[in-house]
Amino acid sequence: MPPKPLDYESLNENVKKVAYAVRGELYLRASELQKEGKKIIFTNVGNPHALGQKPLTFPRQVVALCQAPFLLEDPNVALLFPADAIARAKHYLSMTSGGLGAYSDSRGLPGIRNEIAEFIKRRDGYPSDPELIFLTDGASKGVMQMLNSIIRNDRDGILVPVPQYPLYSATISLYGGSLVPYYLEEEENWGLDLDNVKKSVATARANGITIRAMVIINPGNPTGQCLSEANLKEILLFCYRENLVLLADEVYQQNIYQDERPFISARKILLDMGPPISKEVQLVSFHTVSKGYWGECGQRGGYFEMTNLSPQTVDEIYKVASVSLSPNVPGQIFLGLMVNPPKPGDISYLKYSAESKAVLDSLRRRAHIMTDGFNSCKNVVCNFTEGAMYSFPQIRLPPKAIEAAKKAGKAPDVFYCLKLLEATGISTVPGSGFGQKDGVFHLRTTILPAEQDMPAIMASFKKFNDEFMEQYENYRGFSRI
Amino acid sequence: MPPKPLDYESLNENVKKVAYAVRGELYLRASELQKEGKKIIFTNVGNPHALGQKPLTFPRQVVALCQAPFLLEDPNVALLFPADAIARAKHYLSMTSGGLGAYSDSRGLPGIRNEIAEFIKRRDGYPSDPELIFLTDGASKGVMQMLNSIIRNDRDGILVPVPQYPLYSATISLYGGSLVPYYLEEEENWGLDLDNVKKSVATARANGITIRAMVIINPGNPTGQCLSEANLKEILLFCYRENLVLLADEVYQQNIYQDERPFISARKILLDMGPPISKEVQLVSFHTVSKGYWGECGQRGGYFEMTNLSPQTVDEIYKVASVSLSPNVPGQIFLGLMVNPPKPGDISYLKYSAESKAVLDSLRRRAHIMTDGFNSCKNVVCNFTEGAMYSFPQIRLPPKAIEAAKKAGKAPDVFYCLKLLEATGISTVPGSGFGQKDGVFHLRTTILPAEQDMPAIMASFKKFNDEFMEQYENYRGFSRI
Repeated sequence: MPPKPLDYESLNENVKKVAYAVRGELYLRASELQKEGKKIIFTNVGNPHALGQKPLTFPRQVVALCQAPFLLEDPNVALLFPADAIARAKHYLSMTSGGLGAYSDSRGLPGIRNEIAEFIKRRDGYPSDPELIFLTDGASKGVMQMLNSIIRNDRDGILVPVPQYPLYSATISLYGGSLVPYYLEEEENWGLDLDNVKKSVATARANGITIRAMVIINPGNPTGQCLSEANLKEILLFCYRENLVLLADEVYQQNIYQDERPFISARKILLDMGPPISKEVQLVSFHTVSKGYWGECGQRGGYFEMTNLSPQTVDEIYKVASVSLSPNVPGQIFLGLMVNPPKPGDISYLKYSAESKAVLDSLRRRAHIMTDGFNSCKNVVCNFTEGAMYSFPQIRLPPKAIEAAKKAGKAPDVFYCLKLLEATGISTVPGSGFGQKDGVFHLRTTILPAEQDMPAIMASFKKFNDEFMEQYENYRGFSRI
Repeated sequence: MPPKPLDYESLNENVKKVAYAVRGELYLRASELQKEGKKIIFTNVGNPHALGQKPLTFPRQVVALCQAPFLLEDPNVALLFPADAIARAKHYLSMTSGGLGAYSDSRGLPGIRNEIAEFIKRRDGYPSDPELIFLTDGASKGVMQMLNSIIRNDRDGILVPVPQYPLYSATISLYGGSLVPYYLEEEENWGLDLDNVKKSVATARANGITIRAMVIINPGNPTGQCLSEANLKEILLFCYRENLVLLADEVYQQNIYQDERPFISARKILLDMGPPISKEVQLVSFHTVSKGYWGECGQRGGYFEMTNLSPQTVDEIYKVASVSLSPNVPGQIFLGLMVNPPKPGDISYLKYSAESKAVLDSLRRRAHIMTDGFNSCKNVVCNFTEGAMYSFPQIRLPPKAIEAAKKAGKAPDVFYCLKLLEATGISTVPGSGFGQKDGVFHLRTTILPAEQDMPAIMASFKKFNDEFMEQYENYRGFSRI
């Protein structure tokens, strides 16, 4: 019998090549252990609400009212909802034609796209055109659509930082392109050294690859660094000289845990640079409601903004977006609320501000607890999480541990993370899922566990790690375990 | 200067090849006219709430409570929400880990997938495995994922009914496969004649195409027919003999407007047929909350169920689904509510039943008004809409009208639909967007305008059409207009 069309042997090879570590072997093993009754601390995905972060009250009130518009006519509505939430729900409903149950325009509701354009203008100091802003079911879907537009064949290369968020490697595989890695400098606090990028480009070109785009993740995932203004400038200049699209993943722009290096958007720097660069470099920037102090991952609200794309290309992107009709409308409302939160003087302002600040302050404290905790462990070194939601410590594995991993048929970091999971219930992602230099090992964990649990988690990690190191540094073969 | 990576010239060619008529030239022109202040009746997309259909109350109450879980602890909650909605919100929240703001498993919440499996079992009489049910952001996203898994290159063919829903042609273009059309028989009430399918397969194979899958849309879009049991049996036998995956688009399964031909799922027929066929044919079935009497398009809730796929393939599909993390969670709750609505005895049962019945009864009446209206027009013939949401009348254009279209640089049906739009504000989709036999012309309209508006809309259509026919039958050249 020949294989059937959906048998593994006959699937699209690009589908098989996709690797997605965040929900890979470690996650699957953690899910198994959870089913068996073990308590698992899921730090594999940046999913704040799953680790106890409460949603901000005001946006949830507004979206609840949008879902149940008949409440707006109920005389008791004011007993459960503040007046500004009621007004805001009416505001967003008036932007729809038929409420949350109607498809919107495939680019998203025009009213929300206007609010986003105003937010960008306030943030960057330059006007933004709502016609160049498209809403998506989470930022990932936008990244996927852009890569699908750029990649023509396996000789089209996309520059991706390593360590990288595996969305990029997975999507480039899925659409049959070539990932061209450039290494971030761990010793330089995960900074981007343009010489590394140039070397990568030269090697790729020598192998017949046409470099089409460069991805930056700022603040970094999994590495947590914030790119400096000088760094962004040289990146944009490089994109200009080399004729590359810049894909700026800026989904963590609200997650900043230090004051020295604030978030600056790639778009602001581009426009600051003036012509010809500001008129020439094609830039697509991504943002979401899943991160920040919102953490509304499950709502799947995202957008991308295009700069210096021709109207004809924008039409093509619109056309492809229209094949899946429209992004989910409740997620669009969340985006509107994120870019246009309650203002001083609004009834809900104080509560909203207090809730947001509490989340962000606690994340900042957790970033410190985690970095310090890792750095107190034997053979572990960790850069401080300047931004984003992750800690990415380097684990210096003794040769005997690497040998034991080989015998177990696992990559050394996978071996370590599996042992950590079995011993402590902490579910991390091995560094190999993000890419790392040969012979150097990491793991990624989110900084999201509840603050009061953090000391115990770090103590449990330290106990496991230090025993592991002790064991493998004194290792004399299996008989001694 | 060489073109930039996102200039039109250098985009992925497959992106450029995508055509999507439902939001194509007619829709864009209608949007322009609307901006200019003209009243437009949008019948181009099956988007019931945009045309005034009210959402069902109970599911909206439940989802509103899930969005605002703090209301569940408010002593006043019972003033605005019935007890069974409160109970159901708690039920769904208990299935999540962190409420609607947390990513779910990439396949969807296990609890919802169980409820869907139970629904399928009740519907078909055979157990269904929740591990083979994946939730998606609307059914379109599921169709796109399956086609991406099946299509390897441009010699992989997908059998698609013509007229067809352009999601299929667009997605096959986007992923670089070959659409192999099989014509439905307008004279046989848009029935599927397997001889046509066999002829298409033979021709495609002679051209070096490997046929991998067959799409059926039941009830039909845009054609509205319901496939009979006998028809489904011969299709499944054909797929078995020819080693094809069957993709069964069953999103209109609740939209049935006659009693002679009820909806029967492809899965039920497959399992009725017994081994070896029931164990061998690979089937993927799609469903959604966007259609039926729900019409919750903007929520983007859909699922697909896989039958006879190997665990290894299911793992691959899971892996790719995990790249975009999770479908939106509110849409998942709507799916749970759709497959598990209030039961007799529940507080909300009577209201829910009355609302559902009112929508469905009205759609049935509108299907009749529309078909009868079209058939009363000069040179228009129209099959009755047995199911789904569309009417697809044939417009017999006089040779002079075809000539005038050619002079205007338009396809004849586009020419007709544009004139209709300008004259009446009725925004339809030309038949060429769905495919039609050479020299035969159609348009698609939804049956969704409000029932009370229907007589006026059909009168306005008739007036336009009959004058148009009059004009072009007596046409003597431009000077006479």
